[in-house]
Amino acid sequence: MEHRVSYKVYYEDTDCLGVVYYANYLRFMERGRSEFLGAHGRSVAEWNSQGVLLVVHALTMKFRKAAVLGDMLDVVSTFTLDSVFRGTFHQRLERAGELVVDAEVQIVCLDPDLQLIRFPEDLRALAAAGHPQG
Amino acid sequence: MEHRVSYKVYYEDTDCLGVVYYANYLRFMERGRSEFLGAHGRSVAEWNSQGVLLVVHALTMKFRKAAVLGDMLDVVSTFTLDSVFRGTFHQRLERAGELVVDAEVQIVCLDPDLQLIRFPEDLRALAAAGHPQG
Amino acid sequence: MEHRVSYKVYYEDTDCLGVVYYANYLRFMERGRSEFLGAHGRSVAEWNSQGVLLVVHALTMKFRKAAVLGDMLDVVSTFTLDSVFRGTFHQRLERAGELVVDAEVQIVCLDPDLQLIRFPEDLRALAAAGHPQG
Amino acid sequence: MEHRVSYKVYYEDTDCLGVVYYANYLRFMERGRSEFLGAHGRSVAEWNSQGVLLVVHALTMKFRKAAVLGDMLDVVSTFTLDSVFRGTFHQRLERAGELVVDAEVQIVCLDPDLQLIRFPEDLRALAAAGHPQG
Repeated sequence: MEHRVSYKVYYEDTDCLGVVYYANYLRFMERGRSEFLGAHGRSVAEWNSQGVLLVVHALTMKFRKAAVLGDMLDVVSTFTLDSVFRGTFHQRLERAGELVVDAEVQIVCLDPDLQLIRFPEDLRALAAAGHPQG
Repeated sequence: MEHRVSYKVYYEDTDCLGVVYYANYLRFMERGRSEFLGAHGRSVAEWNSQGVLLVVHALTMKFRKAAVLGDMLDVVSTFTLDSVFRGTFHQRLERAGELVVDAEVQIVCLDPDLQLIRFPEDLRALAAAGHPQG
Repeated sequence: MEHRVSYKVYYEDTDCLGVVYYANYLRFMERGRSEFLGAHGRSVAEWNSQGVLLVVHALTMKFRKAAVLGDMLDVVSTFTLDSVFRGTFHQRLERAGELVVDAEVQIVCLDPDLQLIRFPEDLRALAAAGHPQG
Repeated sequence: MEHRVSYKVYYEDTDCLGVVYYANYLRFMERGRSEFLGAHGRSVAEWNSQGVLLVVHALTMKFRKAAVLGDMLDVVSTFTLDSVFRGTFHQRLERAGELVVDAEVQIVCLDPDLQLIRFPEDLRALAAAGHPQG
């Protein structure tokens, strides 16, 4: 089951080539992950206050199309658990159904001392939420 | 008549003092102006393609409260025309009715050669839209 | 005595109108204030770790020229003390001696509980450093 | 032969977890590529005005350490040519010799109509500049 949330492209997102600046697509991705989490129990602020920091460990991105000022971008996200220590958000940005950017974003959980910890049970359940057949 | 639109605070907006980075409040303000325009006839992209660039000439801001991760901020905007060459957006960011930041943002219109031009009739009408008694 | 430091304009700073995005000039201003502080005793990170947060309370800006990709911008800063509770950075961005943006940035000091405190002695001395005749 | 350029971490780069926001490391990478190009014949602005847009097609990143406010980050870059249509920047961010983030950034050249074109001769030479034994 995919999570979807939409955002408009504003001036802040673009650069002088007339399109969205490449790093800014990752801001859209992060908003999508935040909303995905919030829709499944706890906001990121709540996870942080519980001492669980969700941190990006690695990522890959492919830039298929260029988004421009005024575009509506859908952030489409699913989540899978690779191990008890690592999960992956599979994300793409779509404009009216057309693929713009896709990314695989590996996540780990750290405690407030930035030490690696296991995914809490509720976060492991996100993998099931993301993939009901998974 | 005030224009209102709401945005959530994400990680991208914050800095290591734990609050929204001061310059980023202006991104919220600009989103509010873009939606205000779009709600009254033409999007900023459409104005640009018509050869009318709306550009910030001067601004003042006061920082009243600090917004944090997960806050919902309402951008509240009205518009007045100071002369045929200059308008002002009166804007504030509210969190559940509490004033966070307010700003006065002076706007001018430029042609594609970046020469000052008069506000088009439709943009002058925004002042009336913004202030029905105006 | 003015403090000067220079930064190049990169893609990240620009928007699809082909010039620097208005809010991003404030990033250059903040870099200038950080370097000004660092050149006079303590870095902002050191002030933070001492429990003194320097926070922007209000600002005014005027946009005179538009900077573009590849421009070198000089951030020129002086500092005056308005009271024991408030100081002002007088800042401008110059491109080869030409004024691009100028700003007055009012600063207050907060403790880690975000309560207003007096400027520490060393920061008051910055006003003298900024204006030896002051 | 590696290209190196250094940048300080400012507030604008950080987020409320107290470290550099993940997408912002890509701004450092882009500055490094811009300086690499500028050091080898033409700035990105000059390439753009010649009708050659260097655009990121795909990338991978690994986040090894977290950078914080005040850190000096060295952007270390080399360039290889994968084909006449695609090159790769091999980049890493170092803090006093310690690896912080590394990335492989695939680049293509587009003409002003955003059509794929061959790498110009001068850009192919960058691969040799990047790897004199290559």
